[in-house]
Amino acid sequence: MLKLYYAADTCALASHIALNDAGAEYTTARISFARKEQSKPEYLAVNPKGRVPALVTDRGILTETPAMLVFIAQSYPDARLAPLHDPFRFAEVQAFNSYLCSTLHVAHSHRMRGLRWADEPASLADMQRKVPESVGACYRLIEDSMLVGPWVMGETYTVCDPYLFTIAQWMEADGVDPSRFPKVSDHRRRMSERPQVRAAIAAELA
Amino acid sequence: MLKLYYAADTCALASHIALNDAGAEYTTARISFARKEQSKPEYLAVNPKGRVPALVTDRGILTETPAMLVFIAQSYPDARLAPLHDPFRFAEVQAFNSYLCSTLHVAHSHRMRGLRWADEPASLADMQRKVPESVGACYRLIEDSMLVGPWVMGETYTVCDPYLFTIAQWMEADGVDPSRFPKVSDHRRRMSERPQVRAAIAAELA
Repeated sequence: MLKLYYAADTCALASHIALNDAGAEYTTARISFARKEQSKPEYLAVNPKGRVPALVTDRGILTETPAMLVFIAQSYPDARLAPLHDPFRFAEVQAFNSYLCSTLHVAHSHRMRGLRWADEPASLADMQRKVPESVGACYRLIEDSMLVGPWVMGETYTVCDPYLFTIAQWMEADGVDPSRFPKVSDHRRRMSERPQVRAAIAAELA
Repeated sequence: MLKLYYAADTCALASHIALNDAGAEYTTARISFARKEQSKPEYLAVNPKGRVPALVTDRGILTETPAMLVFIAQSYPDARLAPLHDPFRFAEVQAFNSYLCSTLHVAHSHRMRGLRWADEPASLADMQRKVPESVGACYRLIEDSMLVGPWVMGETYTVCDPYLFTIAQWMEADGVDPSRFPKVSDHRRRMSERPQVRAAIAAELA
């Protein structure tokens, strides 16, 4: 059975929701960032990167949200979570998820994880000040050019949707006013009403 | 026919090589960062992100290297550039590429593109000073935990290989000593000898 390693309020929620969307059987293991469990030997044996999420499968351990989301979609094809048989549409799904991980999530990470890229307190404060602008620019692009509606890819729900929803949870803390982005806000509201999303959030808060 | 938008010395080289590996017919269009062509209306109509690469297909335009690499692999299955029929192995390929785009490439970008995340000259200098450490840590993980050898995924060449090769071109400029990473260095040397790689580099330098 699959086992998802997650930490609260991280991008692991996207895979958690996707597992529910897929109707997968799985267990979860919570990693406490407050106790720095992600850097302890027990967890580094699971994921040498010291990050979440990680997904234990019967063939080995997978990491990286875009890879895990597609793995879930491919492993549960009846759930139709990605256009698996259309390379162009599949690439559009992948491009969206890649943008989230490499641009939007990275911009967000400069608020709390600046020590990955700089050392001085003044640099970290400078990075934090810029987050509303850099994260806001990502949502402007998503709102105007990427989110087709009602779901990210259009009429069909895909693994892009839990991923966007997960990261969009951080808008207010990133200093981005959701009312500037009505499509993203509407997407977030509709996602929050899905039972699969509520179940994942409830499990992580429990 | 496919058309690849690229700029010299960027991650677009990975897709350029993969197109050669696939035996694809394609044309190229060079974008000059020196002339800031990536931010001009003509190119923003191709890619609103103002970044390279972009791949024009007969169905629309694709962006984001991990998505484009898999699209190339799926469009030319006879070239066997990814384990397309094994969801777990495919996810391992995707996880590697996702790590390159969201962690290694991002660490590298703090040397020249710090203005994405901070404003003050002192912050940019701080970021630059940290690049050898942050980029070096990524290569340590790749060397010790990810690059199976002789190719990234083991005996079989995949789209992970041109992507790693492309980013590894920047090691010296990032202040990372290649001799600390013999597997990565050996991979880079063997890649540089492949005709598909030489052809892509020659075309970009022409």
